[in-house]
Amino acid sequence: MPQTILVVSTRGQGLYDITDEAGAFVRKANVATGLLTAFVRHTSASLLIQENADPDVRTDLEAFFARLVPPADDPRMGYLVHRLEGPDDMPAHIKSALTQASLSIPIGEGALMLGTWQGLYLFEHRDRPHRREVVLHVSP
Amino acid sequence: MPQTILVVSTRGQGLYDITDEAGAFVRKANVATGLLTAFVRHTSASLLIQENADPDVRTDLEAFFARLVPPADDPRMGYLVHRLEGPDDMPAHIKSALTQASLSIPIGEGALMLGTWQGLYLFEHRDRPHRREVVLHVSP
Amino acid sequence: MPQTILVVSTRGQGLYDITDEAGAFVRKANVATGLLTAFVRHTSASLLIQENADPDVRTDLEAFFARLVPPADDPRMGYLVHRLEGPDDMPAHIKSALTQASLSIPIGEGALMLGTWQGLYLFEHRDRPHRREVVLHVSP
Repeated sequence: MPQTILVVSTRGQGLYDITDEAGAFVRKANVATGLLTAFVRHTSASLLIQENADPDVRTDLEAFFARLVPPADDPRMGYLVHRLEGPDDMPAHIKSALTQASLSIPIGEGALMLGTWQGLYLFEHRDRPHRREVVLHVSP
Repeated sequence: MPQTILVVSTRGQGLYDITDEAGAFVRKANVATGLLTAFVRHTSASLLIQENADPDVRTDLEAFFARLVPPADDPRMGYLVHRLEGPDDMPAHIKSALTQASLSIPIGEGALMLGTWQGLYLFEHRDRPHRREVVLHVSP
Repeated sequence: MPQTILVVSTRGQGLYDITDEAGAFVRKANVATGLLTAFVRHTSASLLIQENADPDVRTDLEAFFARLVPPADDPRMGYLVHRLEGPDDMPAHIKSALTQASLSIPIGEGALMLGTWQGLYLFEHRDRPHRREVVLHVSP
């Protein structure tokens, strides 16, 4: 079945919209009914379905996760052992665990069956720019 | 492959059991071996596999999430920007991010391979009644 | 399509690496391109993709979840009602809700398309030894 690797260039923490890229791949796959699975090949970035309308929703989501899992140099995170790759690294693994590495979206009438307000996002948890790979796979 | 949209009417926050509906759809699909994927078409409701026995488990789950992500009018959530749709709205997006938009359950001998104590739930995060759509899709 | 039940014997809370078992099943399935779905048949254990390199990452992950969801006899968890099965039981259900019951990994060139640093783990949330079942299913 159709499969590709989508490369997403990130410039710091935040949500990066990949809905259009996923939709274009599904159209090209040319299946009437099926299932798109997205899979991120990293443990410090993840996937999320979120609202595509008000950008404040993304701001607030990022703020929540930054408070729930502060950087490793925050006193509340003093128990962390894995610190070699910087204060944003271990929190990135934790935020990835709290969100998704894989997500599946049904395909109907040749298109993703997302709700009106849903978008597909790569959630980058590291501060520095990264080149992220997301596998897109279409099943029957 | 077989696909349908299940409509769930919710009456406030909480877990709504959709195991029977999903199981009935799988039986009707009449496949011996396969995969059922459920996908919620909203960003303020989500999906969860949870215990189907003691209802206290659901009560406690809801209580945990209500404490982890209080309503926007709680002082701890003073940093939230997206407030137009009421104090339960942005917390609903956050709780959705912390749980699942899609879930896949293998089918064996024509039935969902859920464990004895597992049920499939729609997790409603808004206070007012909503009409929620869950896509059910069977892959080989 | 190919399907099996993997049995994992756990000896207390923590992450148990099942990457090799999943990879071996995929090789045996002998499909060039496809999708592996793993599904845990329990509500007090879950699945996680995490870093397979530094074991400190797993230690820190477990420590974060233990702090976010303390045992039921911790004063912060005084609101919990479901207590019959011990102080580690209800927190186990909550940690399962915060992580994954199902995960899908694309298959390319006959092998799991995991990133270099990714491993597949069963996340045990109970203290006593358990026999956990993980369904592995290959879709086209």
